[in-house]
Amino acid sequence: MKALEERIKKDGIVLSESILKVGSFLNQQIDIDFMMQMADEVARLYDGVKVTKVFTIESSGIAFAACIAAKLHVPVIFCKKSISSNVGSEVYSARVHSYTHGNDNDIVVSKEYLNPDDFVLIADDFLASGCALQGLISIVRASGAKISGAVVAVEKGFEGGGDSLRAEGIRVDSLAIVESMSPDGSITFRKQQ
Amino acid sequence: MKALEERIKKDGIVLSESILKVGSFLNQQIDIDFMMQMADEVARLYDGVKVTKVFTIESSGIAFAACIAAKLHVPVIFCKKSISSNVGSEVYSARVHSYTHGNDNDIVVSKEYLNPDDFVLIADDFLASGCALQGLISIVRASGAKISGAVVAVEKGFEGGGDSLRAEGIRVDSLAIVESMSPDGSITFRKQQ
Repeated sequence: MKALEERIKKDGIVLSESILKVGSFLNQQIDIDFMMQMADEVARLYDGVKVTKVFTIESSGIAFAACIAAKLHVPVIFCKKSISSNVGSEVYSARVHSYTHGNDNDIVVSKEYLNPDDFVLIADDFLASGCALQGLISIVRASGAKISGAVVAVEKGFEGGGDSLRAEGIRVDSLAIVESMSPDGSITFRKQQ
Repeated sequence: MKALEERIKKDGIVLSESILKVGSFLNQQIDIDFMMQMADEVARLYDGVKVTKVFTIESSGIAFAACIAAKLHVPVIFCKKSISSNVGSEVYSARVHSYTHGNDNDIVVSKEYLNPDDFVLIADDFLASGCALQGLISIVRASGAKISGAVVAVEKGFEGGGDSLRAEGIRVDSLAIVESMSPDGSITFRKQQ
């Protein structure tokens, strides 16, 4: 999505060769009108593809997933990173490593919200190693639901997580794929159709 | 909001006299079309009131805050419950006790996203003791921004947090106020105009 690449170049901050800060419009502070345009692009990409639920993980993926769900007019479900008093005991779970926080989380979702007749679009804000998406995918598979695809706002192509998932046959759409970043702040994007 | 009260009566589950589970449409699984209607109601309540940012806390408030921001066409900002590598070091913070998780969190937000010329609408899904809203209010005050009001989807009126804030002069709007719940599952709502 050209507009997202341009926005990243304008407002993203390259903190190192591997860390990109987009907190001013995608995370912490969200330019919601722009995110709705991103969701429009997702709706265009999935036109004609059956989707009954959008599925994400707390917390930075929630806004993007909610915008997509609003455009597709389907519910959005989010995994929690810990069991709390209002989750219930019947859950699907998966262990996910967070490179941002440097720890492992057992992500959980109540079994009642995913069913074998669901067609699930997985959504997240960032895709790097792919750990979070793999956790979400394993939960969808455990539920018996079908995976319609996975969409992310920004993929770090150089980390390889997205291409590994594509090699496994998962449809993965990223609105922008960062191929490389250099300490002087320049960003190269992968060419997409 | 009558439609929300009816939805809570239909799909909410009273787990005890103090715990209401609304995970099938407000939290974990979100009926986003319905949440957009709730956001329409918030936009109606704040018609003519200046709002430049919607402000919430991760993670269950994010979807509601994002829907409100989409209707008001202003950015949404969310506090994080821990400092991560992409937050930055210049932050406003407040200590908030979570009754759901039974722990304290130091919520943080980058200073760059709240400014003295902002008019902030605080938003969250639930209001019980008011700890989360108090933390958000203290951060807005520290930034020098003005508080336009606080909106929540569901207030537990019997916990008193909302009325304490109102007594302090904060405008607090709750789309539904649960006055009492009984173990047989019946729910009584506070009458609102």
